[in-house]
Amino acid sequence: MEELLEELLEECRHYTREGKLADYIPELTKGNLDDLGVYVVTSDGKRYRAGDYKKQFTIQSIVKPILLLQALMDNGIDYVRSRVGVEATGKPFDAINMTDQSLLSENINPMVNMGAIAMCSLIKGDTYEQRVQRVLELTRVLAGNPEIDIDHDVYLSEKRTGNKNRALGYLLKSYGMIQDEDVEGLVDCYFQACSIKVTSKDLANIGYVLASRGRLPGNEDRVFPSKYATYVNAILTTCGMYDGSGDFAVKVGLPAKSGVGGGIMAVAPTRMGIGIFSPGLDEKGNSVAGIKVLEKLSKRMYLSIF
Amino acid sequence: MEELLEELLEECRHYTREGKLADYIPELTKGNLDDLGVYVVTSDGKRYRAGDYKKQFTIQSIVKPILLLQALMDNGIDYVRSRVGVEATGKPFDAINMTDQSLLSENINPMVNMGAIAMCSLIKGDTYEQRVQRVLELTRVLAGNPEIDIDHDVYLSEKRTGNKNRALGYLLKSYGMIQDEDVEGLVDCYFQACSIKVTSKDLANIGYVLASRGRLPGNEDRVFPSKYATYVNAILTTCGMYDGSGDFAVKVGLPAKSGVGGGIMAVAPTRMGIGIFSPGLDEKGNSVAGIKVLEKLSKRMYLSIF
Amino acid sequence: MEELLEELLEECRHYTREGKLADYIPELTKGNLDDLGVYVVTSDGKRYRAGDYKKQFTIQSIVKPILLLQALMDNGIDYVRSRVGVEATGKPFDAINMTDQSLLSENINPMVNMGAIAMCSLIKGDTYEQRVQRVLELTRVLAGNPEIDIDHDVYLSEKRTGNKNRALGYLLKSYGMIQDEDVEGLVDCYFQACSIKVTSKDLANIGYVLASRGRLPGNEDRVFPSKYATYVNAILTTCGMYDGSGDFAVKVGLPAKSGVGGGIMAVAPTRMGIGIFSPGLDEKGNSVAGIKVLEKLSKRMYLSIF
Amino acid sequence: MEELLEELLEECRHYTREGKLADYIPELTKGNLDDLGVYVVTSDGKRYRAGDYKKQFTIQSIVKPILLLQALMDNGIDYVRSRVGVEATGKPFDAINMTDQSLLSENINPMVNMGAIAMCSLIKGDTYEQRVQRVLELTRVLAGNPEIDIDHDVYLSEKRTGNKNRALGYLLKSYGMIQDEDVEGLVDCYFQACSIKVTSKDLANIGYVLASRGRLPGNEDRVFPSKYATYVNAILTTCGMYDGSGDFAVKVGLPAKSGVGGGIMAVAPTRMGIGIFSPGLDEKGNSVAGIKVLEKLSKRMYLSIF
Repeated sequence: MEELLEELLEECRHYTREGKLADYIPELTKGNLDDLGVYVVTSDGKRYRAGDYKKQFTIQSIVKPILLLQALMDNGIDYVRSRVGVEATGKPFDAINMTDQSLLSENINPMVNMGAIAMCSLIKGDTYEQRVQRVLELTRVLAGNPEIDIDHDVYLSEKRTGNKNRALGYLLKSYGMIQDEDVEGLVDCYFQACSIKVTSKDLANIGYVLASRGRLPGNEDRVFPSKYATYVNAILTTCGMYDGSGDFAVKVGLPAKSGVGGGIMAVAPTRMGIGIFSPGLDEKGNSVAGIKVLEKLSKRMYLSIF
Repeated sequence: MEELLEELLEECRHYTREGKLADYIPELTKGNLDDLGVYVVTSDGKRYRAGDYKKQFTIQSIVKPILLLQALMDNGIDYVRSRVGVEATGKPFDAINMTDQSLLSENINPMVNMGAIAMCSLIKGDTYEQRVQRVLELTRVLAGNPEIDIDHDVYLSEKRTGNKNRALGYLLKSYGMIQDEDVEGLVDCYFQACSIKVTSKDLANIGYVLASRGRLPGNEDRVFPSKYATYVNAILTTCGMYDGSGDFAVKVGLPAKSGVGGGIMAVAPTRMGIGIFSPGLDEKGNSVAGIKVLEKLSKRMYLSIF
Repeated sequence: MEELLEELLEECRHYTREGKLADYIPELTKGNLDDLGVYVVTSDGKRYRAGDYKKQFTIQSIVKPILLLQALMDNGIDYVRSRVGVEATGKPFDAINMTDQSLLSENINPMVNMGAIAMCSLIKGDTYEQRVQRVLELTRVLAGNPEIDIDHDVYLSEKRTGNKNRALGYLLKSYGMIQDEDVEGLVDCYFQACSIKVTSKDLANIGYVLASRGRLPGNEDRVFPSKYATYVNAILTTCGMYDGSGDFAVKVGLPAKSGVGGGIMAVAPTRMGIGIFSPGLDEKGNSVAGIKVLEKLSKRMYLSIF
Repeated sequence: MEELLEELLEECRHYTREGKLADYIPELTKGNLDDLGVYVVTSDGKRYRAGDYKKQFTIQSIVKPILLLQALMDNGIDYVRSRVGVEATGKPFDAINMTDQSLLSENINPMVNMGAIAMCSLIKGDTYEQRVQRVLELTRVLAGNPEIDIDHDVYLSEKRTGNKNRALGYLLKSYGMIQDEDVEGLVDCYFQACSIKVTSKDLANIGYVLASRGRLPGNEDRVFPSKYATYVNAILTTCGMYDGSGDFAVKVGLPAKSGVGGGIMAVAPTRMGIGIFSPGLDEKGNSVAGIKVLEKLSKRMYLSIF
């Protein structure tokens, strides 16, 4: 298996240069396009890795399923579902014309920024700092890595340039979709969560817990109920790869989430968790080489759930 | 298992009256809201049924995966994929302002009307009548039922009132997405395909072929290559239940396609094909009781692919 | 005044090559980019002209105010207004998702194609041919030119390639906004109306009738009531120059209508009618040099109504 | 003339109860639906009034042309035009999907909130407080009323509930359309400007200055160049009455601006300025009775510019 991974990396290495580093946060432009790593944790407890699997990068949007899990653990499916929808399509809304437009909870979902900020609003905590700590702690538990922490420079970079997210926060507030008085504090919570530093190995571990429906590797106890895993995996399948989710379903066929830091976490239900890192992104914000590795891995090991 | 099906029908019977009969085609308003039937074909060759599983109804949108299969069999994945996208979200387009708008193949998919009409354009045949016959023949083969035929009254009803579909056909033509000279003929082909009469049993058989990746029940030969089944199942999961696909993924977790005739065809990959009939529809055009039956069946038998 | 016109043409001649010939109808690509002509009819009965004012071209969208006038003369303001709106903004509609979308008469207007086709539907006549003849006759009367006729080649070119307009016709039909059984016949009526051949002089005469609120030059009798002129002029101001209407209002400040044939008809209420021809179009479909001539003419003669 | 105004108020009084008080700012719900006043200033220096012309209300969106004037006086037409468009249609933008959406200056205009906030960004001043004072001072000069001031309660109410405007401010910032570091300060500037208290008389005076292209009543000196008035009047005509501008053009035919406080300022170029107050609003946010009074006044006095 480790040979297969090495082989796949070789086959896909030339794709690393077809993507571009994310540039919407200044700090992310400092990445190295040549990085390419993969890590796999299987249901029989085996671990396989190849390439730059130890390289750290920020989790970015891959924190969205973790925020969703924390919101589910704090509120249950029914309440979370009543506040934020699950459909793939975010309907356009015209922020300019108040009489003409509405924003419905049905039209956002936890895998888009607006829904993720709404998730931060549902996570319990006396202060925003406490909410951040709880998300960080859950990430550490899922990844089995107590060293995981926030990249302060990336966080400051996000905070400095994250006006679109501020706008989304104020839109949520103006349409009564969040109760928070301190929108800046709420959005800051999201900036910090996106700045959590992880490795391919961490992502594979987190993916494993979703694949095993709540169980940590080598442990029969569940961190969260099985139904939360099913809920998250379903949403990852329909919306996890931005507006490339349909294409990813056809080509790879696994629940997965990408982040503009270059990571992809993939879930092969009951079989394995997969973490990949390669920072060159396509136009939709997904790792080019990462998707190629997953496509080949899925084909060779018949991983597609379809 | 048959007891389970009976039980589920009883539990879900009261939902049949929560939906409404489709009214956009006059002929469909003649249905009976009380009808409720289910049929299951499993991978070990067993067949289970309950309720009105023999009742005939028109296939409507459930013909879309069949049109897609025929287009794939005639052209291969690469060509079909190059002509019609696979993402869940159809981007709005403003048909009024020509300089401001474009229509991209990426923004339609085979499970929405425009994409399905484009599929009809890709199906081979010297005449439109021949294309219809080929689709009808494929339906018969997949369902293992040579008696399947077109409901002429429903077809005429569709033809009389199908101006929205005509508009879609002319839009495809105006944006160069189809080559057909005779748009009326092409759309007529789609009207006929939607008017094919089936039963829950037929749908279960068709679903079984998709579940077994191309094999007919009791037969090792494939009607089509395995990869076409994966392609279709993936698209069914992300877009098969209209804009209720995300909710269906979360609650049921199976590739499925609904039609406004009241049918649902569901696919449990490697495990079973399921056909359901109950003509009361929710606002999105999906069978209310049908979804409920599937939700309970999926939970009791752990069918979710997530 | 004629000197002024000559001067303006000289100043603006270099703009003729900044535009492009319309290419969406094959026949229109045969125009000559160097053509530039202007014609003015004033309220004191004077006539001024310069450049290629005798050159013929097809009226295209400038027939829209004539269709609107005929519809008003046949039905009155209240009925026409109840069928088609007057706001500048056509709301986007998603032709794919039937349950999600609607098309409201308020959201189209007579200066966009869909509204113009709806106007054809309101014009009286036993046959579509008769409707076309009535529009042609009104054009002749307004222009004071009984020789005006249809350019058969352009008409056939429009008919061959006008699938977007067919789509619009079928959308109108599918949303119950027109009663016509024969959508192809209705759209054909629009194709013929767009193919009427005119000169700058004809457009100036037509503009004069709108400027004098219904009176022909040298005649106190009105072809139509004053209030119809006000209605048309108001709509020309807010929507006459496609999505360049706001810019035109700021720069020129006159009710006007452009056509992709290269013509512009402008109305200086109570003062003059202006016809311009220069077939090089900007991205919005408006004559580049034509707008420049009007901008300068408006400034020098203080024509802006604002 | 004053008799005519009294007569019009009587004829239109019953319309006051057809509208509703604005409720999106708590403070505005305290208005009195029965209020109805009108004030006219003519080019020959006469002044006519009827009804509650002394009643004070907040200027709300009617401050937008004043913000535009101040921005023009500070930067000139070319710069203002390069930053914010003039077309009537605000294109929808999807604030959720960053890779899919853009926000172009061409697609906003000074009469919608986003454009008005952009105007605040163009107004000069060392502090936001100074900008507010300059706008207040310009309002006093145009209205010839040094007593005009800000309604502190309404301002605080706007500030408390104005999250949609905050969202618009952060969107402008995120798309690089404003340079301001302090978006909250900028939006606060807009909240204060909207809270300026005026009367129908004040509005009539302001309208007069626009009608006389920059001149104060009884004064030949211009407060601003004639071309700024033309620019503002053109935009008022195409976009001044929200998405009721087309209807207003057809029925009244004057440049005008409404506010949700119940005021309308109308401009009859070269002839008169008109101020109206009646707080019952239609669904588009325009004063119901106010529009009716203007419609009748325009008809009786042939004021339409078309």
